[in-house]
Amino acid sequence: MHEILSLVEERAFSKLRGVLIDMNPADIAEQMTEIEDDKSLVIVFRLLPKEQAAEVFSYLESEEQQRIVARISDRELAGLVNEMFVDDAVDFTEEMPANIVRRVLALADPDTRKAINQLLKYPDNSAGSLMTTELLRLKGEWNVAEAIAYVRKNCMDLESITYAFVTDDSRHLTGVVSMKEVLGSPDEALISSIMDDDVIYAATTEDQADVAEQFKKYDIVSMPVVDGEMRLVGLITIDDVVDVMEDETTEDIYKMAAMAPIEDSYMSTSVFSLAKKRVVWLLVLMISATFTGLIITKFENMLTAVAILTSFIPMLMDTCGNAGSQASVSVIRALVLGEVHFSSMLKVIWKEFRVSIIVGVCVAVVNFIRIIAFYYLGMYQIDAGQNIFLIAGVVSMTLILAVICAKFVGCTLPLLADKAKLDPALMASPMITTIVDAVSLLVYFGIASLVLL
Amino acid sequence: MHEILSLVEERAFSKLRGVLIDMNPADIAEQMTEIEDDKSLVIVFRLLPKEQAAEVFSYLESEEQQRIVARISDRELAGLVNEMFVDDAVDFTEEMPANIVRRVLALADPDTRKAINQLLKYPDNSAGSLMTTELLRLKGEWNVAEAIAYVRKNCMDLESITYAFVTDDSRHLTGVVSMKEVLGSPDEALISSIMDDDVIYAATTEDQADVAEQFKKYDIVSMPVVDGEMRLVGLITIDDVVDVMEDETTEDIYKMAAMAPIEDSYMSTSVFSLAKKRVVWLLVLMISATFTGLIITKFENMLTAVAILTSFIPMLMDTCGNAGSQASVSVIRALVLGEVHFSSMLKVIWKEFRVSIIVGVCVAVVNFIRIIAFYYLGMYQIDAGQNIFLIAGVVSMTLILAVICAKFVGCTLPLLADKAKLDPALMASPMITTIVDAVSLLVYFGIASLVLL
Repeated sequence: MHEILSLVEERAFSKLRGVLIDMNPADIAEQMTEIEDDKSLVIVFRLLPKEQAAEVFSYLESEEQQRIVARISDRELAGLVNEMFVDDAVDFTEEMPANIVRRVLALADPDTRKAINQLLKYPDNSAGSLMTTELLRLKGEWNVAEAIAYVRKNCMDLESITYAFVTDDSRHLTGVVSMKEVLGSPDEALISSIMDDDVIYAATTEDQADVAEQFKKYDIVSMPVVDGEMRLVGLITIDDVVDVMEDETTEDIYKMAAMAPIEDSYMSTSVFSLAKKRVVWLLVLMISATFTGLIITKFENMLTAVAILTSFIPMLMDTCGNAGSQASVSVIRALVLGEVHFSSMLKVIWKEFRVSIIVGVCVAVVNFIRIIAFYYLGMYQIDAGQNIFLIAGVVSMTLILAVICAKFVGCTLPLLADKAKLDPALMASPMITTIVDAVSLLVYFGIASLVLL
Repeated sequence: MHEILSLVEERAFSKLRGVLIDMNPADIAEQMTEIEDDKSLVIVFRLLPKEQAAEVFSYLESEEQQRIVARISDRELAGLVNEMFVDDAVDFTEEMPANIVRRVLALADPDTRKAINQLLKYPDNSAGSLMTTELLRLKGEWNVAEAIAYVRKNCMDLESITYAFVTDDSRHLTGVVSMKEVLGSPDEALISSIMDDDVIYAATTEDQADVAEQFKKYDIVSMPVVDGEMRLVGLITIDDVVDVMEDETTEDIYKMAAMAPIEDSYMSTSVFSLAKKRVVWLLVLMISATFTGLIITKFENMLTAVAILTSFIPMLMDTCGNAGSQASVSVIRALVLGEVHFSSMLKVIWKEFRVSIIVGVCVAVVNFIRIIAFYYLGMYQIDAGQNIFLIAGVVSMTLILAVICAKFVGCTLPLLADKAKLDPALMASPMITTIVDAVSLLVYFGIASLVLL
């Protein structure tokens, strides 16, 4: 497993070199993060052949990248930056402190520098920041034989040749053609005749989440990026989009648990920053929860008269909170996946209504039996003149009604939020729980007043 | 927007044909689901050229696929199945009722039938069920010129030619080479000399979630699949993997909200099936929550003595539940992304401990001020002899301690579950809330006994 680390410790460098050459760059990078001594880290890095070194480097976390850059010579850094694919070089540069960025830009060759600078200018999370500028361009007037000759001469510097893009003389995007189509067509066919002129493209300023949506919708593996004048400026490949999708999901999940999303990984986010991301929602929800408390204050007399009612409060709150979260999380996820829309609100409500009746009745029946059982086991005491069947009935009736309300609130709020252009993920468990708590207590005390007083 | 639907309603079929030819298959499929009349649906489908029809068909939901298949002739169905990529044909067949499956298999040409049959045999969610059997094979002893000639002759039937796979005479996988590498190498270079013999591959029986992990880890776009004897049998492409990732995420999110994952989309899952997926966890959590209620029963005397304490119970439960969920969801997501492991448990606990102190103190201070303010606003009544500052102090002290406990429980349980080979997603909000409720009430009554009685 930790082969590299032990070979470093044994100082068995020539053996290590042999091992490294056969390893996958992602695996090498993973093991390199375990080397705590900077000197050894750089030794391992220097053992890698130039091209492999660039690949491994792009898989490293920015902490390790920085540790290496701090110790290698300008000549080595220049070689590294020029060898890396431009989008990887940009990803790396973005994470570095200003002095390293200046050093990198000073050392990069003019073409690479221009490309890096251009990409660095695009806002975070835009299609421009995601793209590489290295892509395969063909001319529409070329025939297939000419195109293949061109590809064979130039392809080694490119990240992906699965699709080629056709531009006119002013670099406007006019079509796309797959390498499969090029290779499968006769030598004399014109590229313009085999290309598809209905290209799915992104604008440099487009949000990366929208770009990811398009990749999923159209099942595509790369997408050209154009500037404001429809000039082809870059290419987004699916491996970068997979990372975006993952980030978007993490954001959604964080929001659903009442946290502001973090930008880095959990382990590399500071304690203070984690606390900040969490405390705001916690305060908001705490304040709202106090109103639930006020409901209890209002019905204090009833709780004094039938003391056992208090002990069902946690169970009612939790069960209804969970029932509501189930509905809200289902609907939020379906919204994200594009399976439901605001227009299907009535269908969703009708569906959740039927689900809540089945679920509510099941839970209520089990709860009724449980209360009676606990009573006869001596776990509940009631005052003389009170009837345990009546009390169990009140609690179970509350469960049915409150579960129905909870599922209703849980399924409608995310849809309303989406309609109001708010993020539906904010309407997940914590928010629903807070609202549903109040609802279920009101139902509880309402029914109890009618039946027991 | 709904161009197809309106052209169908106007019966403007020749105009529609022109419109369809220029549209993207995914967009056509999306609009076709809106056609409610079967006859019109089939008319639109028949207007599509053969190849486009196969593509559009593979984007349709199984409901629409079935509506079309029920109305087209055997000759049309045969043409459709043989035109589709094998993995798409399998995806379609899997969703159909048995009589349609038989009809499809009877009509498919022998090669296609063999391939479909073979893929249908792999278990759901295995690499085998995800792969296509159409892939580009090269021989190691060919030179580049021969390989290119072979590719140009055969590529049009293949789904992806981005990578070619090299096998020996007994079809054992020996290497992989990118089309870029092939095209960029001189004519006389041998494929065996330019191929990479360290191939990342999957076994047919491997779980698709593990396959997806590999795609993410190695940033790859396709992966060969081998049988038990290392014979190359298929290829998984990243577009299928993206769907798997999405399904895995949905599963995680459902589990986090205390639901068994659904197999279909939310809208196409029946009410009964949704209820079944939800009720089990709801019952489990309800039963556990009753123990929280028993804690209250135990401290009934205290609640009678200082009645206002009851009204803080919902706020304490919700706030601590949310604080615990924040920690557990952060850790669960970090586990899924491979950012933390059981071995970093102490680091995680130390991190969450410091976070919980900051968060706990903030929440406690705000809460203290809030209670005093509400008291002077007349929203809280206390009995003579009781001190509101002391009561607010008890609640705030409870908040700090209970938030610390909640974050501790929230961050350790997912890691322990992972270590015990259980799904950490089960340790999300609902489970944590139930445990943390009991903890926070015990802390609450403990402190209150010490200070107030």
